[in-house]
Formats: sequence, structure tokens, C-alpha cells
Amino acid sequence: MLTLQYIGTNYHGWQVQPNAVTVQQCVQDAIERVTGVRSPLTGCSRTDAGVHAEMFCCVTETEATIPCDKLVAALNAWLPLDMAVTDCREVTADFHPRYDARGKQYQYRIWNRPARNPFLEGRALHVKRPLDVAKMQRAAKDFLGKHDFSAFCAVGSEVEDRVRTVTQSTVTAENGMVTFTVAADGFLYNMVRIMVGTLLDIESGKLAEGCIPSLLSAGDREAAGHTAPACGLYLTQVYYDG
Amino acid sequence: MLTLQYIGTNYHGWQVQPNAVTVQQCVQDAIERVTGVRSPLTGCSRTDAGVHAEMFCCVTETEATIPCDKLVAALNAWLPLDMAVTDCREVTADFHPRYDARGKQYQYRIWNRPARNPFLEGRALHVKRPLDVAKMQRAAKDFLGKHDFSAFCAVGSEVEDRVRTVTQSTVTAENGMVTFTVAADGFLYNMVRIMVGTLLDIESGKLAEGCIPSLLSAGDREAAGHTAPACGLYLTQVYYDG
Repeated sequence: MLTLQYIGTNYHGWQVQPNAVTVQQCVQDAIERVTGVRSPLTGCSRTDAGVHAEMFCCVTETEATIPCDKLVAALNAWLPLDMAVTDCREVTADFHPRYDARGKQYQYRIWNRPARNPFLEGRALHVKRPLDVAKMQRAAKDFLGKHDFSAFCAVGSEVEDRVRTVTQSTVTAENGMVTFTVAADGFLYNMVRIMVGTLLDIESGKLAEGCIPSLLSAGDREAAGHTAPACGLYLTQVYYDG
Repeated sequence: MLTLQYIGTNYHGWQVQPNAVTVQQCVQDAIERVTGVRSPLTGCSRTDAGVHAEMFCCVTETEATIPCDKLVAALNAWLPLDMAVTDCREVTADFHPRYDARGKQYQYRIWNRPARNPFLEGRALHVKRPLDVAKMQRAAKDFLGKHDFSAFCAVGSEVEDRVRTVTQSTVTAENGMVTFTVAADGFLYNMVRIMVGTLLDIESGKLAEGCIPSLLSAGDREAAGHTAPACGLYLTQVYYDG
């Protein structure tokens, strides 16, 4: 199992696509350079184009006898500079980085000052008007618990069971950065970005304060907020047992 | 007076050069776009190629009657995305951003984990071996006070008075990032980068612990440490009276 970090800006998400560069493809290329064999690589999630990862886990199988710590250095020599392997460990053959994950944590970062921040270009959403953080904090609490998140799932997703349990949902503000942190046992397609769009629409008054419980029970994607841009989204933790 | 932030990676430093793109030139271009006139622009310091600024001050003169807050937004629309104006205020005609500065603060950032950090690519020096931070902290204290910093000035500098007063010189470590913070009434050419190279050479044992006082009194650049790379250096504060 490899643990990765990457800046998603230059990639069309995780998963290999026919005509676009992806993170998965770059990691497979690096593994092939090091081991001489192109191996399947299974990820813990399909991050979208432009989404970043501070922790992403993926699993491959290799006959190579390189020790784990040497493999980290060898892969990093071949990977593009906007991604890196931070850890490598042996797992059992039946381990699956997606199905065996107990849950994940994402952060959505909003730079909330009038002027752009060049250090956060492509790494946070820029909102110029001063956000009412207390209002967003009150709204974020309504995501907590076990709900059908159909209203917070992109149209076209084929997932049938849309019940997820959100265990953390907070909004913090520090030095101009407003951060939404959310953990759950699983996430639907675009779920965090629609949650953030909904929080921003509640903040601006476009959606009514206290509307989240009724959005959840109605399950209508059209009634929820907009999909916030990918650039602010980070996969920050993947939780496994043991 | 404009306050700027920029990522120095893509620029040959602040000052306009005949055949290389610089920060000064980009800001002058943006001012010309907004006001219609190309005006002289005086900076608070000459940062080197690859050095970053979280706070950089520069002064121009304009006949334009655009209010300061509108000017910030207008300039940011024309500036490259790796730089931004964060503040604009009127100053008296005799104000000089360099000579009127009481002092400046720089930070030098070192990513100190075995694996690369893609989010810090070009934004911190990567040192893989675990640094003895306590040893660096002890050495950094020796820079405090009023000294002739000739040993910490790049060969070829034409500055005659090399006496500077260092008022802050600390090394901190947090979540893998080792940060050297130094404030002084002024800095010589490459001074912070040579200070950092010297701290790293003391840490590694290449230079003797406790050598800084004798390096300062001898004033020999050759006896001090190496010049650390530009990518870890940030101008973080410029201090003015009032």
C-alpha cells in the first residue's frame, strides 16, 4: 500500500482515462520504471480533476523485493514534482483500499480576503466578501449523523445506496482561511463540493437558514446548493482499522 | 505604496533586467494597464531570483484618481496569478520604501521529512536527514545583536557599511517544517541564505558548534557556511514607523 500526496491541478483526477493524464497513470508509470512491470493499481477513491490529496492510499502487487523504505525514494525519483509517495507498507492480498476504509476526511479551503493570495492559487476557492462564519458553522452541524445524501450527490451517479454517516462537520476560520472539515463512512460523487456550495448559498441568503434537514429528507439535488469548484477540495485522511 | 505578495519561482528577482522577466516589470506593466502611464516603481529590497515575498512594499507616483481600494482590485486583474497586491495606501512624496524601513523580517523554510512534499515544491528547501533543531536553535542565538556581517555577505557586494543589528533569530520546528526567522535593521546581499547555510553546516558538523562569534569577528566569507538555495526564503515583514 502506497500513501500519496498530490496537487490535483494538473491532472484529470485519479482514475486512468483514454486521452487525459491522471494521477493513477503517473504512479503506475513510476512503479513500472522501478520494478520493470506494469501492475494494476487500486485507489481508495476516485478524486475529480483539480482535487488535491494530502493522504491518498492505493494498493499494487509486485514481485519486486525492494524494501518498502527504498521503494518510497525510488518512486519519488520518477514521479512528477506535484505528487509524492510518503509511505509504503505491506498489506495482505485481500486488502482493498476502498472497501476496507472505515471512512475518509475531506477539507474544503476558502481564502476569504478581498485580495487574491498567490500562494493559494489553485489551492483554495477565493471568496472576496467577508463570510458569516458563525452562520456556516450552525448550518454545517445539520450534516452530522446518518442521512440519505441523495440531494448532495451529482446527477448521473449510479450509486444506489446513498445513506452515509457524517461524523465530523465543522467550519473554522483562521488568518483569512475558512475551512470546512467533514468526515464520513463514505462519500457520494461531488458530495463535499455540493455540501460546500449549500453552505455558501445559505451564508449568502440564497438558501434559507436551517434548510439542510428538509433538503436531506426531500433528496432533491436541484433544491440543494451549487457545486463548489474542485480547487478548494483536499482528501485529508483515509481511516483504516488497525 | 503597494503591498505585494509573490511566489518568486518564475521570476528573476524583483529588479528589472534587460533580458529576463522580473516582479518589478510585471507590476509596472499592470500599473500602466490601469493608469495608462508607465511610472517608476521603487521597491523596499532587491529580492533574488526564486525568493518569495509574503510582504513586499513598493512606491509609485500617479496622476490617476482611482481610489486605493479600487486600485488593488484593478491591478490584481492584470497581474500574473503568482503575484498579488494586498494593500494600497497614500504616502508622502518623500517616503522611500527602502530607506524609510526600520527593518525587515525573513523566514527560511526547510521541509525536514524523508519524502518530498508536493505542496512545498519550490517553496521550501527539502532536507531528508532529521535535523538537530536544538543545535540549530543554540547557533541561531549567536546572530543576535550588532555585528559586522561581512562573513555573511556574498562576494562582490559593493556595500561598505556591513554592520547590521539582528533583533530576532530563532529556529522552530512544527509538523516537519523547520523555520529560521530573522529580523534586522537591514540585510546584506545573500545574508539570510548564508546564515542558513552556516546553521546547516554547524548542524551537520561541517562547521564547529559555537563558531558564529569568531566567523563574525573574522569577517571572512570563505570561513562561513554555504549559501542555501533561494527557494526556501521568504520576505515576511517590512517594518515602518507609524
